[in-house]
Amino acid sequence: MNPLTTLVEARFDPHYHNKYATLMAAGNGALGVRATHDEAYATQTRGMYLAGLYHRAGEGETTELVNLPDLVGMEIELNGEIFSLLSGELLRYHRELCFASGELTRVVDWRSAQGLRFTITSSRFVSAQRLGAFCSRIAITPHDGSATIRVATGIDATQTNSGRQHLAERELRVFDNRYLQGRYRTLDNHSDVTLCCACQVSPQAQVSFSAKNRRLLQHTQQTIAAGESFTLEKCAWVSATLDGPDDNAAAQSLIRLRECAVAGYDALLAESLQTRRAWWQGARVEVESDREQDQQALDFALYHLHAMTPRHDERSSIAAKGLTGEGYKGHVFWDTEVFLLPFHLHTAPGVARQLLRYRWLNLAGAHRKAARCGWQGALFPWESARSGDEETPEFAAINIRTGLRQKVASAEAEHHLVADIAWAVAAYGQATGDGAFMAQEGRELLEETARFWLSRTQTVNGRLELHDVIGPDEYTEHINNNAYTSYLAHYNVALALDARRRSGGPDDGFITQCEDFLARLFLPMPRQDRVIAQDDTFFSKPTIDLTRYRAQAGSQSVLLDYSRAEVNEMQILKQADVVMLLYMLPWRFDSATVAANLDYYEPRTIHDSSLSKAIHGIVAARCGRNDEAYRFWRAGCDIDLGDAPHSSDDGIHAAAAGAIWLGAVQGFAGIRIEKGELHVTPSLPQHWTRLTFPFCWRGCQLNIAMTHDTLTLITDRAVTLFIDAAAVEIDGRTVFHLTDHGWRKEAICNPTR
Amino acid sequence: MNPLTTLVEARFDPHYHNKYATLMAAGNGALGVRATHDEAYATQTRGMYLAGLYHRAGEGETTELVNLPDLVGMEIELNGEIFSLLSGELLRYHRELCFASGELTRVVDWRSAQGLRFTITSSRFVSAQRLGAFCSRIAITPHDGSATIRVATGIDATQTNSGRQHLAERELRVFDNRYLQGRYRTLDNHSDVTLCCACQVSPQAQVSFSAKNRRLLQHTQQTIAAGESFTLEKCAWVSATLDGPDDNAAAQSLIRLRECAVAGYDALLAESLQTRRAWWQGARVEVESDREQDQQALDFALYHLHAMTPRHDERSSIAAKGLTGEGYKGHVFWDTEVFLLPFHLHTAPGVARQLLRYRWLNLAGAHRKAARCGWQGALFPWESARSGDEETPEFAAINIRTGLRQKVASAEAEHHLVADIAWAVAAYGQATGDGAFMAQEGRELLEETARFWLSRTQTVNGRLELHDVIGPDEYTEHINNNAYTSYLAHYNVALALDARRRSGGPDDGFITQCEDFLARLFLPMPRQDRVIAQDDTFFSKPTIDLTRYRAQAGSQSVLLDYSRAEVNEMQILKQADVVMLLYMLPWRFDSATVAANLDYYEPRTIHDSSLSKAIHGIVAARCGRNDEAYRFWRAGCDIDLGDAPHSSDDGIHAAAAGAIWLGAVQGFAGIRIEKGELHVTPSLPQHWTRLTFPFCWRGCQLNIAMTHDTLTLITDRAVTLFIDAAAVEIDGRTVFHLTDHGWRKEAICNPTR
Repeated sequence: MNPLTTLVEARFDPHYHNKYATLMAAGNGALGVRATHDEAYATQTRGMYLAGLYHRAGEGETTELVNLPDLVGMEIELNGEIFSLLSGELLRYHRELCFASGELTRVVDWRSAQGLRFTITSSRFVSAQRLGAFCSRIAITPHDGSATIRVATGIDATQTNSGRQHLAERELRVFDNRYLQGRYRTLDNHSDVTLCCACQVSPQAQVSFSAKNRRLLQHTQQTIAAGESFTLEKCAWVSATLDGPDDNAAAQSLIRLRECAVAGYDALLAESLQTRRAWWQGARVEVESDREQDQQALDFALYHLHAMTPRHDERSSIAAKGLTGEGYKGHVFWDTEVFLLPFHLHTAPGVARQLLRYRWLNLAGAHRKAARCGWQGALFPWESARSGDEETPEFAAINIRTGLRQKVASAEAEHHLVADIAWAVAAYGQATGDGAFMAQEGRELLEETARFWLSRTQTVNGRLELHDVIGPDEYTEHINNNAYTSYLAHYNVALALDARRRSGGPDDGFITQCEDFLARLFLPMPRQDRVIAQDDTFFSKPTIDLTRYRAQAGSQSVLLDYSRAEVNEMQILKQADVVMLLYMLPWRFDSATVAANLDYYEPRTIHDSSLSKAIHGIVAARCGRNDEAYRFWRAGCDIDLGDAPHSSDDGIHAAAAGAIWLGAVQGFAGIRIEKGELHVTPSLPQHWTRLTFPFCWRGCQLNIAMTHDTLTLITDRAVTLFIDAAAVEIDGRTVFHLTDHGWRKEAICNPTR
Repeated sequence: MNPLTTLVEARFDPHYHNKYATLMAAGNGALGVRATHDEAYATQTRGMYLAGLYHRAGEGETTELVNLPDLVGMEIELNGEIFSLLSGELLRYHRELCFASGELTRVVDWRSAQGLRFTITSSRFVSAQRLGAFCSRIAITPHDGSATIRVATGIDATQTNSGRQHLAERELRVFDNRYLQGRYRTLDNHSDVTLCCACQVSPQAQVSFSAKNRRLLQHTQQTIAAGESFTLEKCAWVSATLDGPDDNAAAQSLIRLRECAVAGYDALLAESLQTRRAWWQGARVEVESDREQDQQALDFALYHLHAMTPRHDERSSIAAKGLTGEGYKGHVFWDTEVFLLPFHLHTAPGVARQLLRYRWLNLAGAHRKAARCGWQGALFPWESARSGDEETPEFAAINIRTGLRQKVASAEAEHHLVADIAWAVAAYGQATGDGAFMAQEGRELLEETARFWLSRTQTVNGRLELHDVIGPDEYTEHINNNAYTSYLAHYNVALALDARRRSGGPDDGFITQCEDFLARLFLPMPRQDRVIAQDDTFFSKPTIDLTRYRAQAGSQSVLLDYSRAEVNEMQILKQADVVMLLYMLPWRFDSATVAANLDYYEPRTIHDSSLSKAIHGIVAARCGRNDEAYRFWRAGCDIDLGDAPHSSDDGIHAAAAGAIWLGAVQGFAGIRIEKGELHVTPSLPQHWTRLTFPFCWRGCQLNIAMTHDTLTLITDRAVTLFIDAAAVEIDGRTVFHLTDHGWRKEAICNPTR
């Protein structure tokens, strides 16, 4: 494995404060910490989150990921001057996140208003090994004579979610003159939250403690000679009881902290690095590109895929912004199954299993929602948190001009996520062959989601139709027979029928119902030009020139000129919809149909959703349009890594990170699972000369490497896959060459095997 | 009246951010707004408060004055650069609070990092006339070429009390493309809070609105030529329903705002100025001193006495920090009756009446507290808010090292406030002759407080004693027969007995009980050296050298070296106790006793309370020790106006402001009310050449002016007072001269009268 890349912030610019706080956030799937500066800035939002720790601040509010008391902040005074990068003179600024270790380092040379120079180096990380551990370190060196350094840091519970406070302060303590502990409880009395920290400083330093206004602080003061360094090393432990209060949790937390404090920053970092290294071994995508940022984008994506995924807890799933910010309130969407699960499925299938078990464990909530709406089976919530109930607010934020509140349409009618979950279950079953899961959780998920669709139809002239739905394109609401939804629902029911038949259980009518559904469900067929109608009325709507809005993709600027109702009545797509269908069920559409629909819909799509361009890129790649695919893929990378200063303020686009991996693996490497078969059709973009990645398939560990004309597969046991649509059994190392007649297996080139 | 002084902040220094935010706060008795900067600083605490709007954030929390959504904040971008005084180059900085108008003005010349110069002038005030109105204005002038100015401002409900959120957001609206409204409700559903504002900008400016994360903002953008000015004028209206929710309040609030917006900044300021001018006419103390800051201190004190006093609402009283910060949670202490009420009593007696009615209306709570503790009558809460119930937390904040919580002693045993209230009632009756009040509210207050004392005694060898009390000196807790408490209790019961006798009602045993109490209550008598024991055990305790702690008066530094229990066992006073008694009941002690006790106790007093030095000063003045009195008075002025950067962070010391007036009027002018007689004994300090002030007495309006050797009294009707202990009847203008035989009335020098 080549060395991993890093992410560098080379310039201190308050406009980018929240972007970099997001991009450089630390996380281990359980704990996420925004990369805010040690010293506070009024324009920067601090944030620390525990996966699964949600709370609703009160009536009329929405359940949200709790922004925890802050551990990052350090009030720094240098010879009496409050340190801020806004003041004085900034002589050097360098901040760098190491994707390999997860360590964030900042080096600053600063001249105070008094004219004294200091070097301030700080670093921090969240342990990948000990899930509650967060460590930081700061070193301050005066250069122009001795200086008095004062640092105050500890646990600051003035933190809120934009003013919403979720935690009551229960007790603040300092144990053994060293260990600070803050105990909090969510206002609904459901969860206990404990934060502990210890700051190691020189024995020469003066130390005192204070507790006031929800701040428990250690105040450290020391006079340092020129060229010498003040150092402070802070170890912290963060934990919460997610399933009810527990008075023992605080003591446990303190024990964990003591262990960390004894180990110290360097040992904890080394231990964490080892854990991370093992993870990267099984996941990293390496690319040789003439553009440096391609490898960086892949490393960035995988770093965050690691940080956002609660591998430790099957009762939690992946939030739309991971653990990096408060966007979408930390809720779980279909993004998880469609954009994120494939990565885990093919690098750590156990994680994919766990993400599906999250849904399975929440079937009760899905049943409740279906029943409340008058349907049967499992209607999973559009936005899910820990309870499994629908968390989407019933009404959108008030229209500040009219005072009206609109019902939130997605929770009412964006039902395709039910089939998306079934799609993911099937993908899991095909990729792992995990019979035990498929016989229990898998079958139940498939059947219960299918039951929903069976109850969801309307009969029109003898055929079954799905009315009043919303497809992935959220600019077209409350339509009938949305192609995406109907095809996916059909697939869902077919999967459930197949599972039931396999199980050999008696037919309580379910099999008959499924057969009837599959026979009679209306699926919009391609018209003569092969274009499939997005819904019943789509073709009848007018088009407008979208150039301006497409140029500002992601900003929803079209809604400044048109009302939602007006947009609804035009051929304007927020994001991939029929194209998304082509991506999801590729075996259902021939290549001419795929191309025709891509050509028809893409120009009508603004790509205002971060989920859009990446999918277009993969479908373009499958059409052999490499340049176009690469452009889409790059645009997907730029959703977070681009120059826009505020697009990531409230968290990374988790699905977009997943899509960076999808684009490389499903787009350019051409990996496709069709009816349980693994297809590989390499098609690297011009900029790339080599692509390598590990890939799990049916219990075997593949390593796949490709150039423009070779494909090297290494497997730890025999496996069959399809190259150029031809089945090939491989074992050990196998090389294919691209010839005029397609990919051809090389004569045994490694006689030692 | 000579022009009023101003308060100037000449230097921008983040260390003083919160001090000046407090000192320069705006207020009208109903609404208080901290003088924070337009642009946000991480180290500065914004605050806006409505008198009487308290809320408890949850179990285990304390009822506190709610920090309201912010109206002050303006996010300013100048040619794309975020404006902050920390960044760029500050070429000029001047901030000035005009005590006459209450207008705060800031002028800044600033060079951006890009090298462009701007002048930014902003001003604001809270209307003294329209109690919900807060107006601000900003003008930005680019000097080096045209510049794009962006300002975002509105209603920011991310504000909390150090992380405690009291308000749920109910609705955000923009009416008529101009009027922003935020509706909030306290989490206990008791009060509706409405904030409205409108920003007037040039028609050339681009305006849009946003509502996100509890922020409702108007975004204004305009390109301004060099030398031209961008201007924004913001009118706001703040209101709350304090006695239950009311859905009509929001509409009313909007009407009030529209009226203000129509009037505009200048007209509202002129109107407010007129109201303020009338107020100053009846209150201002003018001094000719060789030290400029003396007049400033008096103007500062009176400005804040105006700003802190809820003249509009008898259900509210004066918080210990006024409406300038969150210190002491906005609670009402004995400070109000003893340190603040005299000013009102002698400048606007109706306000004093109202402050006493606040207590009278809260008798139920005082009865509840007495009953809960097993006593009778009215035990007023040590800390009072709106409910009239005890708001002092039962336990102090946890000791962070031991984990133990101590019961809060003041609420348990600091009962002298009961007698202090009676003392204030008597003072009111004597100064106003308000028979109606004294016959109803006054008598009831005197009797119910007396009943408490009657029940509070213990019989020891036939005499009545008051055990387990705390006097004003809070460094000596849980002692028996505290001189201050016993003498005041005795006075309280005597007042009640007198009132009952006057009322001529039948004796239901109360008269007999009072007579017995007065006859048998143990009052510590002066020992041979005339020193009165602070309590039974005081003289038996050791002394230590207090020099170090006295040098750091106000910091409670003695508690860093000794535990509270240890301090309790030494002759260490936090503040005036026996000296306070001398001040309160001067007619009970001859001058030799006063001097002896001052000499004994002052060196044993650290003055760690802001209530201490001023009282020592007045008692010293009464002893004829002018220099000492002046030093104490100046020290009292410096509590807020001195150089200490953080002493006023969480609000002004309201009682200290009251004491600045007390020191001038009761100390140097020698005004003393003894048994219903008004005594004047001028004794100006060396630094002063003239002192003038208005003074209300028994319905007549006196104007009192004095130099070192003349005393001029002007009255609007005939009145008797005592000069040099001799009764003098005066009418119109009367001049006295200091002769070798004392003050002598001048022969009629104004033959026209």
